[in-house]
Amino acid sequence: MSKVVTFGEIMLRLSTQRHLRFSQANNFTATYGGGEFNVAVSIANYGLEAEFVTRLPENDLGHTALMEIKKRNVQAKNIAFGGDRLGVYFLETGAGTRGSKVVYDRANSAMATITPGTINWEEVFKDATVFHWSGVTPAVSQTAADVCLEAVKVASKMGVFITSDLNYRAKLWQYGKEPKDIMPELLSYSNVILGDLDTAFFMSGLAEEKPDYQNKASLPILYNKLFTLYPNLEKVATTLRYSISASHQQIGGILYDNGELYSAAIKDVTPVVDRVGSGDAFMGGLIYGLLNKEYNAQQAVDFAVAACCLKHTIAGDINLVTADEVEKLMSGDASGKVAR
Amino acid sequence: MSKVVTFGEIMLRLSTQRHLRFSQANNFTATYGGGEFNVAVSIANYGLEAEFVTRLPENDLGHTALMEIKKRNVQAKNIAFGGDRLGVYFLETGAGTRGSKVVYDRANSAMATITPGTINWEEVFKDATVFHWSGVTPAVSQTAADVCLEAVKVASKMGVFITSDLNYRAKLWQYGKEPKDIMPELLSYSNVILGDLDTAFFMSGLAEEKPDYQNKASLPILYNKLFTLYPNLEKVATTLRYSISASHQQIGGILYDNGELYSAAIKDVTPVVDRVGSGDAFMGGLIYGLLNKEYNAQQAVDFAVAACCLKHTIAGDINLVTADEVEKLMSGDASGKVAR
Amino acid sequence: MSKVVTFGEIMLRLSTQRHLRFSQANNFTATYGGGEFNVAVSIANYGLEAEFVTRLPENDLGHTALMEIKKRNVQAKNIAFGGDRLGVYFLETGAGTRGSKVVYDRANSAMATITPGTINWEEVFKDATVFHWSGVTPAVSQTAADVCLEAVKVASKMGVFITSDLNYRAKLWQYGKEPKDIMPELLSYSNVILGDLDTAFFMSGLAEEKPDYQNKASLPILYNKLFTLYPNLEKVATTLRYSISASHQQIGGILYDNGELYSAAIKDVTPVVDRVGSGDAFMGGLIYGLLNKEYNAQQAVDFAVAACCLKHTIAGDINLVTADEVEKLMSGDASGKVAR
Amino acid sequence: MSKVVTFGEIMLRLSTQRHLRFSQANNFTATYGGGEFNVAVSIANYGLEAEFVTRLPENDLGHTALMEIKKRNVQAKNIAFGGDRLGVYFLETGAGTRGSKVVYDRANSAMATITPGTINWEEVFKDATVFHWSGVTPAVSQTAADVCLEAVKVASKMGVFITSDLNYRAKLWQYGKEPKDIMPELLSYSNVILGDLDTAFFMSGLAEEKPDYQNKASLPILYNKLFTLYPNLEKVATTLRYSISASHQQIGGILYDNGELYSAAIKDVTPVVDRVGSGDAFMGGLIYGLLNKEYNAQQAVDFAVAACCLKHTIAGDINLVTADEVEKLMSGDASGKVAR
Amino acid sequence: MSKVVTFGEIMLRLSTQRHLRFSQANNFTATYGGGEFNVAVSIANYGLEAEFVTRLPENDLGHTALMEIKKRNVQAKNIAFGGDRLGVYFLETGAGTRGSKVVYDRANSAMATITPGTINWEEVFKDATVFHWSGVTPAVSQTAADVCLEAVKVASKMGVFITSDLNYRAKLWQYGKEPKDIMPELLSYSNVILGDLDTAFFMSGLAEEKPDYQNKASLPILYNKLFTLYPNLEKVATTLRYSISASHQQIGGILYDNGELYSAAIKDVTPVVDRVGSGDAFMGGLIYGLLNKEYNAQQAVDFAVAACCLKHTIAGDINLVTADEVEKLMSGDASGKVAR
Amino acid sequence: MSKVVTFGEIMLRLSTQRHLRFSQANNFTATYGGGEFNVAVSIANYGLEAEFVTRLPENDLGHTALMEIKKRNVQAKNIAFGGDRLGVYFLETGAGTRGSKVVYDRANSAMATITPGTINWEEVFKDATVFHWSGVTPAVSQTAADVCLEAVKVASKMGVFITSDLNYRAKLWQYGKEPKDIMPELLSYSNVILGDLDTAFFMSGLAEEKPDYQNKASLPILYNKLFTLYPNLEKVATTLRYSISASHQQIGGILYDNGELYSAAIKDVTPVVDRVGSGDAFMGGLIYGLLNKEYNAQQAVDFAVAACCLKHTIAGDINLVTADEVEKLMSGDASGKVAR
Repeated sequence: MSKVVTFGEIMLRLSTQRHLRFSQANNFTATYGGGEFNVAVSIANYGLEAEFVTRLPENDLGHTALMEIKKRNVQAKNIAFGGDRLGVYFLETGAGTRGSKVVYDRANSAMATITPGTINWEEVFKDATVFHWSGVTPAVSQTAADVCLEAVKVASKMGVFITSDLNYRAKLWQYGKEPKDIMPELLSYSNVILGDLDTAFFMSGLAEEKPDYQNKASLPILYNKLFTLYPNLEKVATTLRYSISASHQQIGGILYDNGELYSAAIKDVTPVVDRVGSGDAFMGGLIYGLLNKEYNAQQAVDFAVAACCLKHTIAGDINLVTADEVEKLMSGDASGKVAR
Repeated sequence: MSKVVTFGEIMLRLSTQRHLRFSQANNFTATYGGGEFNVAVSIANYGLEAEFVTRLPENDLGHTALMEIKKRNVQAKNIAFGGDRLGVYFLETGAGTRGSKVVYDRANSAMATITPGTINWEEVFKDATVFHWSGVTPAVSQTAADVCLEAVKVASKMGVFITSDLNYRAKLWQYGKEPKDIMPELLSYSNVILGDLDTAFFMSGLAEEKPDYQNKASLPILYNKLFTLYPNLEKVATTLRYSISASHQQIGGILYDNGELYSAAIKDVTPVVDRVGSGDAFMGGLIYGLLNKEYNAQQAVDFAVAACCLKHTIAGDINLVTADEVEKLMSGDASGKVAR
Repeated sequence: MSKVVTFGEIMLRLSTQRHLRFSQANNFTATYGGGEFNVAVSIANYGLEAEFVTRLPENDLGHTALMEIKKRNVQAKNIAFGGDRLGVYFLETGAGTRGSKVVYDRANSAMATITPGTINWEEVFKDATVFHWSGVTPAVSQTAADVCLEAVKVASKMGVFITSDLNYRAKLWQYGKEPKDIMPELLSYSNVILGDLDTAFFMSGLAEEKPDYQNKASLPILYNKLFTLYPNLEKVATTLRYSISASHQQIGGILYDNGELYSAAIKDVTPVVDRVGSGDAFMGGLIYGLLNKEYNAQQAVDFAVAACCLKHTIAGDINLVTADEVEKLMSGDASGKVAR
Repeated sequence: MSKVVTFGEIMLRLSTQRHLRFSQANNFTATYGGGEFNVAVSIANYGLEAEFVTRLPENDLGHTALMEIKKRNVQAKNIAFGGDRLGVYFLETGAGTRGSKVVYDRANSAMATITPGTINWEEVFKDATVFHWSGVTPAVSQTAADVCLEAVKVASKMGVFITSDLNYRAKLWQYGKEPKDIMPELLSYSNVILGDLDTAFFMSGLAEEKPDYQNKASLPILYNKLFTLYPNLEKVATTLRYSISASHQQIGGILYDNGELYSAAIKDVTPVVDRVGSGDAFMGGLIYGLLNKEYNAQQAVDFAVAACCLKHTIAGDINLVTADEVEKLMSGDASGKVAR
Repeated sequence: MSKVVTFGEIMLRLSTQRHLRFSQANNFTATYGGGEFNVAVSIANYGLEAEFVTRLPENDLGHTALMEIKKRNVQAKNIAFGGDRLGVYFLETGAGTRGSKVVYDRANSAMATITPGTINWEEVFKDATVFHWSGVTPAVSQTAADVCLEAVKVASKMGVFITSDLNYRAKLWQYGKEPKDIMPELLSYSNVILGDLDTAFFMSGLAEEKPDYQNKASLPILYNKLFTLYPNLEKVATTLRYSISASHQQIGGILYDNGELYSAAIKDVTPVVDRVGSGDAFMGGLIYGLLNKEYNAQQAVDFAVAACCLKHTIAGDINLVTADEVEKLMSGDASGKVAR
Repeated sequence: MSKVVTFGEIMLRLSTQRHLRFSQANNFTATYGGGEFNVAVSIANYGLEAEFVTRLPENDLGHTALMEIKKRNVQAKNIAFGGDRLGVYFLETGAGTRGSKVVYDRANSAMATITPGTINWEEVFKDATVFHWSGVTPAVSQTAADVCLEAVKVASKMGVFITSDLNYRAKLWQYGKEPKDIMPELLSYSNVILGDLDTAFFMSGLAEEKPDYQNKASLPILYNKLFTLYPNLEKVATTLRYSISASHQQIGGILYDNGELYSAAIKDVTPVVDRVGSGDAFMGGLIYGLLNKEYNAQQAVDFAVAACCLKHTIAGDINLVTADEVEKLMSGDASGKVAR
């Protein structure tokens, strides 16, 4: 069975309930999540082996995070303990014309202060098929970026297939480096990149160029630019999201693979229960789709889009759906009939 | 005043909150419901007399179910006590493209183990106008089917008007009989049947035939087939449901009565707060509509459809609306203005 | 900085949760609100000074109401204490085709039993720019109407700009007077009136005339009628609301100012988290818009409509949004993207 | 089977949760209760017939109160509808050295505005064994006192056994009369009075005299004074309560019957879940004890004390315990072992 | 590191909140637990390896139970899937003089219908130090008793140390056998038995004899009787529990080992947050204590008692405390000071 | 009217509910508190003027903290905005033998990174009677200690009476300094110190000496040592706390004033709803007691002890009681009777 390893931060998420604003909240719902952990959970839910690598603080919140990892059937055997605090983020859930709002409180977390040598990557990758990381980790601190580089080098050397999600967050990258200083080297080891084209150009230090995703014929030339930059690159994918309102999204996706453009039809998503983690759900679906021998490239991107859509109906960061449920929606059944 | 008696199972329903999946739930909302009880509550809410007949276990859950029956102004004077457990069902509430999910745990319930002779049907029906039962009861066990037959025979002999909802659930019917072995005899006493045409044919042991409800002219020939099978049948009704998503339904209805087809316009239902029991709400509305001297057949089915639509806005199995509220929607006012 | 004073009642609002009907509720969510207080909160949220004048009972509920006023940065220095009880209203939150329902329990409240002489209006208005009141206050009791008149007379004499919201509630006006006996004198001091044209005619004792808001050319003649009645009137505004369902509203607005009709485009509002107070949100937005030197009349009404739309996404009576958030929607961005 | 009729007010009770103070509460737990209703529920729980007579407003709160009455198996067939509002009371639950706090909001309720002629007392009492009322009802308004008098006169004439609980609340009695103007006539029809001796003297217009309940020999002379005043009196009972803290009470009781003093041993009650309604639980237990042919006078008061103790462990006003549970504690088993 | 394997049922527990009675509950708190699972969690919390063996149904509740096992760091690699339902029990939490109440609904569960051959015991025990089972499992069904016997035979043959908790529940044992028909053979393989002496005699088919635990000198002769019956027996332990009220318990314990009686001092436990599982906490503490090389027999029983006491402060069935926390209480520090 | 200014940190407190452990929590109750803010709230609740000075981050959590300050009637006019995050602490509420547990997450907060010059202390103190600070602030960072020194110097120069609570927390003081390096200079400006004698000696750099608070005659010599160290010192107070369990505390207090020792009797506190902030409640009570002209020294310390006891019954950090409530307990009435 294939095994997917992901590396990143898991945070305590504290969200207001029933669309309350922060100043109305007397309670926060506590869940645990983070981009790369979310991908690992998707993989485990689809029946493959998944392992999550991170650094957690030696306190009750760190240990509770560990329990959530185990509960979701994700392996935790290479997690390091140390540092002062678990990263936290606060979420105010919007509705309709009012968007959700995030207050990050993740500086100085156990993961942000990880240093090279902490993780035994040879041990981590010894039975791994895929290694997945995202642009959030090198955005947090220089040492986290260093560990990321350490990881992709070992993975690459050991023949592990590498996937990356660009995941650009302007509020991060506060430690004196810009994405273009860090990301190109990291991406040079990647076999698959998920991201918007303009983000990819920006992070690669190229001149900005606004792609027109409606005009499919115009896209290959842009995707090809990335292949010239990154020698190991095999596929590039992009999530298409049209935001009608906080409660109504439209989701599609593109997979550019071997010179062919595979495009999944746009699906309506309404209402939105929770959109955080839907990009990670796309990524998890894509990895599963690419690993699934019975799928072709079109099916892989269709699976990713359907997984992403379903995530919007699930509270919390992680996509608690089975492969059967994703395939049902992927096959066009959006009826939401009661299963009884 | 007319009095409607219904017979069936009332269960403890345990539902997850705020669209959580089962594996996220640390709480279940507890309510009580069941198809035939739900019909009785509708009748009581519309101002007629209603009585519910069932069998409950002699424990705290059985007694709490009894209190809920009384709270809703439904008579409980012929309820039997005995058996080991109250039937339970678990409900995970979906949203958008993710459907709701039911885990039944009703085997060996007090109602499933009821036996003939338990209920004094002559006493039950002595002041009854209508007797209502549904296909869920004979699906649960042979003895429950036997008691159902016992009931319809007495009701018929005593001149009580009999209505039935086919209510086919494939997961039930586990005791070695198929619907066609049991339902035809039971239905032969019915004056009104509610159900899809294909379900009616299937349960009657006829060859399947997929009706085209859009093509109204094609329907009378199909409905008429049922009249040839069931000598006491006077009216057949069908709920039309188009499921856009778990959060958006379209509801219409048909009443075939005396050779005439009455069709209620499709109404949009969005968002869906809770769709469980909406079929029972249709049935309750239909019985009320047929009993209401001031309504004609068209108004009866219009009332049933409006009642069904409103049920989708009410949490729990039972339809907590007044006849005035149903008539307001039936008259076309779907504005949802604040009453103040 | 401009300062807006509002005068009216603040009530304890007890609302059912998760769309439950009253007979299902074992809990009520407690918040505090009332038309004129809601306007004051909007003003404070937009960064201007706001003061609320009312009468509160000397008990724990009265003091908790006072704390909510202070929490929201609204001045409370001229609030009187006395009387027997805090006004209460119960709210059942509808969904889809089922409207929300209000049970008022505000008779004999501290505010309803206020009497002239209780408030030192000269003190209140000494640093005020605007005084706002609404038609709810004179509807409650003769003495409350008397205090309202006392207030507008002083405000007018002291050169404070006066705004009024007609806010007609048929269930009030139970003390033997009709609106036309009371409102014309009160309105004669107003510089701005917010309300439907037919309500304005009715409250002014004029023959009813149903305006056609779609036909904009037909409106000036109607608005002008009001100017002939009320000598101090400078502007009239109307909120346009089309109710598709309890969960889907369409909101627009008109400002008739100096012979010109400014009309804001209709916006879709779905889902509706809570529509109570959305009229007050319009009023608060309009006052801010008119006070904002950088806005023209069109922008003032656009701001009011956007504020009103956002209110529908906020639980409780008060509109917890910043001027930046309103301006974002006013500028056409309804995407509800996550701010992170 | 004996049947007990009680007459009084049922209110909506809104209590803060988890010992929160009013100014911290964002939620109120909603239950329904009132002294005489609480007694009726006790009687029904012990297996006798119980009926509650009151007046309810024609709104959703009035109808929900009615449902709670029916849920608890108390007959509601002589309840009148009318008036403007349901009485409300707010409860802040104390702990340890901080006592609970009640904010009454019951003025002008449907029950306070009841008038003679509203209830058909001959119909009410036609199958009644006992009629119970308490001093709260005549304290609310002159007309409520008048209806109370109307009731006891009919009950007395029809040979119904009359019990009364003095239930003195200083905050009531606001309509210009003192207890001594009203209570003596009402009490003259009573067969049983429950109350402290000093309260009984005060309400009877006698000079105050502080009884020493520890000195049992001193009590008969005081109890006998009441027998000289009230010709129909057969028994007098007193609840003994020693309040160590809000969370720790000590409960005993006295029954003076036929010249004999029966005294129940003091029991410790800790922790206190909810002490509201514990006096009514004593009264309900006493009536049951007196009606129970298998009990002697000592057992009657022992049952009343045990019922009162158990009430402190039940949230809400009503005493949800069975006669078996009371008898278990009455027999000395306070172990609170798990029943499994 | 030592590894402890336990075998038994894990159930969904549905408990009322805030001491509500069943008829007041609109919500149930959902947790998962069961005697032998609870022991495994204790072992894992103390830092040893733990594995739980059971049979779970293939539905969402079965899978959620599995996630809870993994979350608590208990191995689940030999769990079988099959059967129709997860066992359920309902818990009403008492207080003071009112005891808690359990409604079992565990008949026909996946575990009750397990059959010999389902579990590969050789695989299970290949790295096990201790095997623990309890008298609840053979009480449920003949096939469960058969599997229990299958397990102890293999464990014994493979040299695994066997511990048993008698855990007598009169409500179980419904399948036609009495404890004395089943338990002696099962216990003949045990090295340690936990239970009251009278229960041990009863289950062994011996004449009842009520031990006097206060009179320590009288006990060895009774404990010795068990050693004559069960050839492999090395130690017998008994939990001493004195129930002052549902909220106040006193806990002690005895270990009879190698002819010596070790007795732990009685500790006061008040208030009781949740006493379910406190016997399992004693058992888990005892196994840990016996395995801990640094403890002598006295310390082993002291640890068991302290663990049992702490369990009463934890909501749910499982004892979420560390060995450090138990040792702190065991050393006499019951101060409950804030750790900060 | 006297005015008390306090300076320190206000944090978001996230506490588990119903005694749950961190690993069981899916929700955290959110309140705001901190030692010096808690003192300010007490002062405001007793009817004096209170102002709180701090630094808050410019985000939604900072602004919500500000609203809580205003809600509690504490002046906020000299609060600075800046920095990255609001300090957070997580609280797990113990019971019985299990203590509560705090996880601090307050490093790098807006308050920890405050620098001299941020606050205009002359402006702050211009109408102040008392300035209160505590040992938590200089424990957080060197710059916070510097600002503290800046404050006491200005206060002293302007003749403001200075009170300090030693508040030693070993987990803080992580920036390279020990208390004895910082505290003596700060304390040299104090007129009143609250703290244990051994803490006072330790923080002053003196040899440790364990006082025997039971032996009152032995104490003056120890208290006098402090007077020789700190020239401005007028009074020293100590809270006496005996912890029977997390749910049962015993509280007393000592005030050493002008060579006289005033000792308040020990009071039992059980159950404990929330003990966090009870030391601050003592401090707030002491300041009020000292400012109250109608109290002598004995009454001042009695008031402080009663306030401290009552705090244990209030959820959250702040002591929501009135002076009347404190005086009632101070006068010996601990009965917790219902106020109605």
